[in-house]
Amino acid sequence: MRKGDHVIPIFNGECGDCVYCKCDNSNLCERFRVHPLRSVMVNDGKCRFSTKDGKPIFHFLNTSTFTEYTVLHSACVVKIDSKAPLKKMILLSCGVSTGLGAAWNTAKVQAGSSVAIFGLGSVGLAAGEGARTRGASKIIGVDINPNKFIKGKAMGFTDFINPNDSKNPVHEIIQEMTGGGVDYSFECAGNLDVLREAFLSTHEGWGMTVLLGIHPTPRMLPIHPMELFDGRRIIGSVFGDFKGKTQLPHFAQQCMRGEVNLDEFITHELPFEKINEAVQLLAEGKSLRCVLHL
Amino acid sequence: MRKGDHVIPIFNGECGDCVYCKCDNSNLCERFRVHPLRSVMVNDGKCRFSTKDGKPIFHFLNTSTFTEYTVLHSACVVKIDSKAPLKKMILLSCGVSTGLGAAWNTAKVQAGSSVAIFGLGSVGLAAGEGARTRGASKIIGVDINPNKFIKGKAMGFTDFINPNDSKNPVHEIIQEMTGGGVDYSFECAGNLDVLREAFLSTHEGWGMTVLLGIHPTPRMLPIHPMELFDGRRIIGSVFGDFKGKTQLPHFAQQCMRGEVNLDEFITHELPFEKINEAVQLLAEGKSLRCVLHL
Ligand SMILES: [Zn+2]
Ligand SMILES: [Zn+2]
Repeated sequence: MRKGDHVIPIFNGECGDCVYCKCDNSNLCERFRVHPLRSVMVNDGKCRFSTKDGKPIFHFLNTSTFTEYTVLHSACVVKIDSKAPLKKMILLSCGVSTGLGAAWNTAKVQAGSSVAIFGLGSVGLAAGEGARTRGASKIIGVDINPNKFIKGKAMGFTDFINPNDSKNPVHEIIQEMTGGGVDYSFECAGNLDVLREAFLSTHEGWGMTVLLGIHPTPRMLPIHPMELFDGRRIIGSVFGDFKGKTQLPHFAQQCMRGEVNLDEFITHELPFEKINEAVQLLAEGKSLRCVLHL
Repeated sequence: MRKGDHVIPIFNGECGDCVYCKCDNSNLCERFRVHPLRSVMVNDGKCRFSTKDGKPIFHFLNTSTFTEYTVLHSACVVKIDSKAPLKKMILLSCGVSTGLGAAWNTAKVQAGSSVAIFGLGSVGLAAGEGARTRGASKIIGVDINPNKFIKGKAMGFTDFINPNDSKNPVHEIIQEMTGGGVDYSFECAGNLDVLREAFLSTHEGWGMTVLLGIHPTPRMLPIHPMELFDGRRIIGSVFGDFKGKTQLPHFAQQCMRGEVNLDEFITHELPFEKINEAVQLLAEGKSLRCVLHL
């Protein structure tokens, strides 16, 4: 890499040397599976940031990109086409790759299949975009915030369900809409009750639920072991099962050619000083991606 | 089918017409997913057995084969090679197909991979035979009954662990033996604590646990949702993911050619009158398959 290169920072580094990096079926590099909120540089175990009085400030998710300058391990920096527009490409750094890759790489959605997406934030909308670009014929969006449906409609979702609009559980509505359930469901809400609905919304025999939400709960999976004999599957997906260094440059090309619609994800632009305002917009569910300008 | 044909009865019928039978990824025919202990003929919803005073006796697992004569739906009868030895072929009716198919069709074990099998009854030993015939280089058997290891050794298992021999959890022993965990584990014990050990015994990033045991418990899966982000997968398998009518005739041929070792599964032979003794042998863990003669 050289000064001036266009690069994408990724939390899910790819060292290229470990047993995971050398395995076709995993993108979990063993060198970068550190504590997300207290990460350090892997080479020396130290930080590169500190407070004015010398206390260490840990890195955040290996990247620490809520800053004007940062320090990254080269395994966490992906060089892409020098003509790639940075404002859009930063979307590949997490949410869009995570959701879209979950549809492409984890679930391997096929043309003509049906999909339900629970939670229409960036990750959920990206999963929908992944399903759309793979030719899914039915893309059902589920959210308790009906404002999310406007964006979903613009991005090619075919149906919407607000769980608060019906007394029946969502999985019953979806099973009725689809003649037994969808082929794939994506849980992007971080709620175990939603996860159970997502699981039951898929068709017995072959349905697959992809877990994407973060679940800070002591509760275990709300699935009975015997329910696995109904042929439904559940699988977790990290960073859309993309190997960052190896596969994002190609993905960036696909985005530049317009095969994937990135425009809809950028909802706001603000100066860097207003970063707290940007976080607030996100917390309130009002924005998807807010681009910050220096 | 004609009188004199050699056939195998299967509980997991294949009608050939339903959405599951027409799907490549499922062997769960919708017409035969009835209550296993109270099943009836699917065409008229009635039984074919009754007590002397006319009370209906329900079918057992669609087949009711603990009898000298039985009545079966044709979707539950698989015609095989007329030279096939019936004494061995009946093993394909459940346990051997279930375990071996779990390795072949569900996990898709590959040459050189490592496998751990929890519970060395017929299903577990058959999963080991499935792994062996696919070229697995390490087949670890886990059981609290060390007598099971004799049979396991004869069938090509490479290592054995008796959980009672160590204070450390089995998954730690297996992770140490295999440099991080096996590629595939098979839970054939019907115990959720064992299931968790089987889950943790696989390698992060790509490990797959196949659930085969019957779990009559109100407890949910002992897996935390965030653990799915470690790249371990869990999947259930019914009848080894074999489509009975379509695929068992070929499987029977493979057994006849000696590609699969069926001999070790037949441990006892008794006259039909001693059926209760045969059940007792099974309950005590002393037999695998006891063949009953009329
Ligand atoms: Zn690595
Ligand atoms: Zn069928």
